[in-house]
Amino acid sequence: MSTRAGIVVTGTEVLTGRVTDRNGPWLAEQLRLVGIDIAEIVVVGDRPDDLTAALQHLTAAGLELIITSGGLGPTADDLTARVVGEFQRRPLALDAALEQRIAAIVERLQRGRGWTVDPEAQAAGTRKQSLVPAGATVLEPVGTAPGLVVPAPDRTDGPPVVVLPGPPRELQGMWPAALAAPAVTAIVAQAEELRQRTLRLWGTMESELAAMMRAQGDALDDLEITTCLRDGELEIVTRYAPGEQDAYERFAAAVAEAFPRTLFSPDGASIDEIVARLLRERGLTIATAESCTAGLLAGRLTELAGSSDYVLGGLVVYSNLAKHDLAGVPLELIDRVGAVSEEVAVALAEGARSRLHSDLGVGITGIAGPGGGSTEKPVGLVHFCVSDGVRQRPARWVIPGGRSEVRARAVLLALHLVRRLLEEDSDEASAQAGA
Amino acid sequence: MSTRAGIVVTGTEVLTGRVTDRNGPWLAEQLRLVGIDIAEIVVVGDRPDDLTAALQHLTAAGLELIITSGGLGPTADDLTARVVGEFQRRPLALDAALEQRIAAIVERLQRGRGWTVDPEAQAAGTRKQSLVPAGATVLEPVGTAPGLVVPAPDRTDGPPVVVLPGPPRELQGMWPAALAAPAVTAIVAQAEELRQRTLRLWGTMESELAAMMRAQGDALDDLEITTCLRDGELEIVTRYAPGEQDAYERFAAAVAEAFPRTLFSPDGASIDEIVARLLRERGLTIATAESCTAGLLAGRLTELAGSSDYVLGGLVVYSNLAKHDLAGVPLELIDRVGAVSEEVAVALAEGARSRLHSDLGVGITGIAGPGGGSTEKPVGLVHFCVSDGVRQRPARWVIPGGRSEVRARAVLLALHLVRRLLEEDSDEASAQAGA
Repeated sequence: MSTRAGIVVTGTEVLTGRVTDRNGPWLAEQLRLVGIDIAEIVVVGDRPDDLTAALQHLTAAGLELIITSGGLGPTADDLTARVVGEFQRRPLALDAALEQRIAAIVERLQRGRGWTVDPEAQAAGTRKQSLVPAGATVLEPVGTAPGLVVPAPDRTDGPPVVVLPGPPRELQGMWPAALAAPAVTAIVAQAEELRQRTLRLWGTMESELAAMMRAQGDALDDLEITTCLRDGELEIVTRYAPGEQDAYERFAAAVAEAFPRTLFSPDGASIDEIVARLLRERGLTIATAESCTAGLLAGRLTELAGSSDYVLGGLVVYSNLAKHDLAGVPLELIDRVGAVSEEVAVALAEGARSRLHSDLGVGITGIAGPGGGSTEKPVGLVHFCVSDGVRQRPARWVIPGGRSEVRARAVLLALHLVRRLLEEDSDEASAQAGA
Repeated sequence: MSTRAGIVVTGTEVLTGRVTDRNGPWLAEQLRLVGIDIAEIVVVGDRPDDLTAALQHLTAAGLELIITSGGLGPTADDLTARVVGEFQRRPLALDAALEQRIAAIVERLQRGRGWTVDPEAQAAGTRKQSLVPAGATVLEPVGTAPGLVVPAPDRTDGPPVVVLPGPPRELQGMWPAALAAPAVTAIVAQAEELRQRTLRLWGTMESELAAMMRAQGDALDDLEITTCLRDGELEIVTRYAPGEQDAYERFAAAVAEAFPRTLFSPDGASIDEIVARLLRERGLTIATAESCTAGLLAGRLTELAGSSDYVLGGLVVYSNLAKHDLAGVPLELIDRVGAVSEEVAVALAEGARSRLHSDLGVGITGIAGPGGGSTEKPVGLVHFCVSDGVRQRPARWVIPGGRSEVRARAVLLALHLVRRLLEEDSDEASAQAGA
């Protein structure tokens, strides 16, 4: 049985969907790295009874560790430290030295920003943040709020509760100190390493993969394999104990044998990382001319640091006049075949290349919806072209879903088209080597 | 006491953070619209014991309704229907008519896509999906999986469990049928309307708002107010019963009086919607020239349907040569003051206007990091300019955080600068009317 942890995310804004929780997923991955499996994430609002009930539930589930995020601010509705202290039956007491350290931080922040805050309210807030449950380890503030590691009540073997702030930057900055707290170190010491590897396929159906896995019989019994179809990429994530490394290698080899054309990432690299690596390896530059995606492909190509080595820029050609003025698409061509057409996609790719003086050009033109569709050219129709000046690779897709799905999927499809063009060279090289 | 519901999201890919849950937030908002408050969201993996424990926990918490998402597929690890049936002590039985309807759907899908799947495995999957707990209401499939409304065990008053599929499109499509199921209708009938209103401020500190709210004394006691700082926007969300409408109006008026310059959204409209409305009202067009944000502002301006009415296009000028070639920024200027400078931001805004023939131009140039910073020009420094040809409004910010935060925040700042320029006209008009 693996070592398991539960996470409690507090905050009405997360519960009601106005803010997406980033702490649960981040903590899940950090825990995995130290061999702790995540059993459950519970999201509750800023209500003390709900938080207590969640702590009871996770304790009753037999988990070895509980982590909370949020509710550590200076105001009265920030109640996590108090509730956790009561739950672990450890009375709060003022830590005067901590109070001074927090006061110094707050003062420094205010000087920097030129704020003025009611000094009495501020002192009350600082005092509230300096109340520490008996026997708890204080985690020094990264913002202004300290974290806590609160052990189980005396003479019981319940899980310790790690209390972390809500802002992701503060939570992440405090994590090393949380891992170093004695109550946490003791649990990590018992945990066994848990490895995780990812394979990504492009163009294989989930049902085909399921059939291939069934054919493996009980060879996969000791691997925890989850498959997930995301925007057309089929992702296979496998977790296993170190002793199962050989079993994993055999499985990965079987996937590579069954799906040689579609396994584009045998090492878990994302399509973004692969495109960046291929461009760098070949010393090539790239530029875009986008209509329906309107800059999102250029934005994505520049997400990775250092992308200025190979991204020169792009054209956002939303209007037909912009397609002509910026990318040099003849207006006569647009009149004749329509802005959403293979011909215009090709002209956009070439326009991007020539205007930006890049090696590769990518053109995208489509109907993102919800309006503008017809029987012949429905909403979701997108024409693409990737060109390196010698090879022009046009492609056409009808993407299901709403406006944002069509635009997001079109960006991903364009990245795969770039990858395929760049990999043609390797394919030819291997074909020649094999001949 | 309000009517409260809990949500169980199943799926190892959500639990481990590889997929962001979209169903919990969506359901929370749908429930609010029918007067049901969300108490808790629990995320568990594909393990039957964890799902059962979550159902027990939410039932013990006294909630009136439980909703699950995910785990309704045709394979063995899709176990939600079976676990919920056991939990509600309602034995599964084959619904032969449902089986035929699912088989027809699957067959139609396969014809459309040209798949071939092992017919025996497929029949087993369809049969599994047609097992219905005794007394449950079947929700017709939107994809291939049916949903269920499973009432509490006979002669108990526990909550009914609504079982919905994981894919958001299927879950959302099935929601009206879930609301119409007798066990759910009975709960909605008891629920009281819960109103929600949002105010957004730009440039007010959370502490200033907190002080203003304290000054309101007990006038806010019957309003549930949550405040949240997001990317520099301060969001105030208030929930209240219909009888508290006057109390809310007084609070909203007090906020408007205290923060007349920073309350930019008195009706909850997003900055994107406000910019779109202002451009439409004034009949103006806009274009962009982006360096560090590399198309993300153009992408965001075109997120709303119909944006082609006012967005003409943009220039992504990642390299200095592109700044010159596309936007007409003199290379001599870049050499003299650097690419990240007020002068270049102004030149980019004017370049966008003249190249795209737009009324407004927006220029952005900055250092997104992690490299490229210096003492004088640190990582996070971004220069902006919005121009309408007469008024040039440059601005400079040093944005904290990593590369993606700097880029995202820069896009939001640019939207607010556009709003401010557009609102200057209204300000002048009101000043003249008042004079």
